[in-house]
Amino acid sequence: MGMITSLQNSKVKEIVRLRDRKHRQRTGQFVIDGRREVERAIDAQVALTAVFRCIRADADQSHTDLIARCDERVEVIDVNDAVWRKICYGDRKDGILAVAKQPDHGWNTLRQLPDRALIIVLERLEKPGNLGAVLRSVDGAGADGVILADCVCDLYNPNTIRASSGTLFSLPTVVSDEDATREFLAKSGFTIYAAMVDGSRIYSQVDLTGRVAIVLGNEAHGLTKRWERNNIAGIRIPMLGIADSLNVSNTAAILLYEARRQRGT
Amino acid sequence: MGMITSLQNSKVKEIVRLRDRKHRQRTGQFVIDGRREVERAIDAQVALTAVFRCIRADADQSHTDLIARCDERVEVIDVNDAVWRKICYGDRKDGILAVAKQPDHGWNTLRQLPDRALIIVLERLEKPGNLGAVLRSVDGAGADGVILADCVCDLYNPNTIRASSGTLFSLPTVVSDEDATREFLAKSGFTIYAAMVDGSRIYSQVDLTGRVAIVLGNEAHGLTKRWERNNIAGIRIPMLGIADSLNVSNTAAILLYEARRQRGT
Repeated sequence: MGMITSLQNSKVKEIVRLRDRKHRQRTGQFVIDGRREVERAIDAQVALTAVFRCIRADADQSHTDLIARCDERVEVIDVNDAVWRKICYGDRKDGILAVAKQPDHGWNTLRQLPDRALIIVLERLEKPGNLGAVLRSVDGAGADGVILADCVCDLYNPNTIRASSGTLFSLPTVVSDEDATREFLAKSGFTIYAAMVDGSRIYSQVDLTGRVAIVLGNEAHGLTKRWERNNIAGIRIPMLGIADSLNVSNTAAILLYEARRQRGT
Repeated sequence: MGMITSLQNSKVKEIVRLRDRKHRQRTGQFVIDGRREVERAIDAQVALTAVFRCIRADADQSHTDLIARCDERVEVIDVNDAVWRKICYGDRKDGILAVAKQPDHGWNTLRQLPDRALIIVLERLEKPGNLGAVLRSVDGAGADGVILADCVCDLYNPNTIRASSGTLFSLPTVVSDEDATREFLAKSGFTIYAAMVDGSRIYSQVDLTGRVAIVLGNEAHGLTKRWERNNIAGIRIPMLGIADSLNVSNTAAILLYEARRQRGT
């Protein structure tokens, strides 16, 4: 354990670099901001490498309970207020963040799905906040997994983690592309429902109780034409006002909870 | 019609000032960014006072169709690229914005509700993006109105307008406080459902087909205790994962569309 007071410290600089997506990809590491999020990462057995705490007179807590739950190899580093302001993200007042290794997101992640699995596929999603909000609804609805196909935004963007409320750590998530995704879904016997503005069937009138994959597209452009196939059912949410679509995370929430309602759980 | 090229022009400075909430409140005016949003404001007969267009070589369009739909008293002002960069919000590439008068948001706005009206009440909402996303779902679900009780954020924040996709202009919306809201609901014969993490009833097992008000609380703190009364039913969305609640706009979307589904429309 040590105390850092210099803004030039190499560990401080490394946190700042990890705010950049390319550096996250290069190193395979990322930053978890906030007490609840760090706690949920520990719950989900994400491999933390370091925990940074802000030490100051008015700090609510020293997070010793969280520290106690970390593996002994996790480095615990205290920093003063000036350093904290440099490394924290947004208005995070908890005074705690962690550095962690990105878990694996290969197809193995979805190897143990129940018969009536419910999964969601997100194609070309752009906004980290939307991705995080969808993950939070996937968690809430008790769905079994997520596939990110050709995702534009980064799963480990701080806004994704925050909007997900830390639920992303416990959700089986595959990061892949669209071809591999359709191959997996076909091979695994999924009924595919693609959410489209002009989908031919109303979402609440299709059977969402089986082994079901719900596919959602990009915020601005919707799903690519590649999802318009004979074996894929286009579903729509009725739009009774002036807009022609809902926000993607609201669409996901409505579809996921309709599936949950139909399943009677 | 005129062309502004000076960043010091008083009209340019006024747009910049209108990005500040206090100035919007003082003047009763606000800025509408983007072609779709300006179009929806015109559709909803919002009183525009001026339209600003960015004139540049690579501009996609001059928006003459929109201009033609404006009242002749609306001032049309062309600006060069440098001025546009100063007055536009975020990455708005449409090259059009409008200044408008804030419509009235008194109780009269809800004077003509159908018998089986569905309205949503938002108490102490803080984030403009959440407010806008809820409004977009209210529009989509064909609900009849919105009451903002003690709203922390501003209905005319640029992020609210953007997240609402311009639907806020066509939605009957009252801006008031919590006491007046409960008085109105009681007087108008609404059945009140308050969304709470520990609500005693599951949202899909209550009757949402009558004259119904759905009440949602603050993002961090939920609803205040004042909504825990004998004549108010607490409803909850089942949370099957690790998080104890959903994002407020996702909660709103699920409840609004369950009401719509029950109504068979």
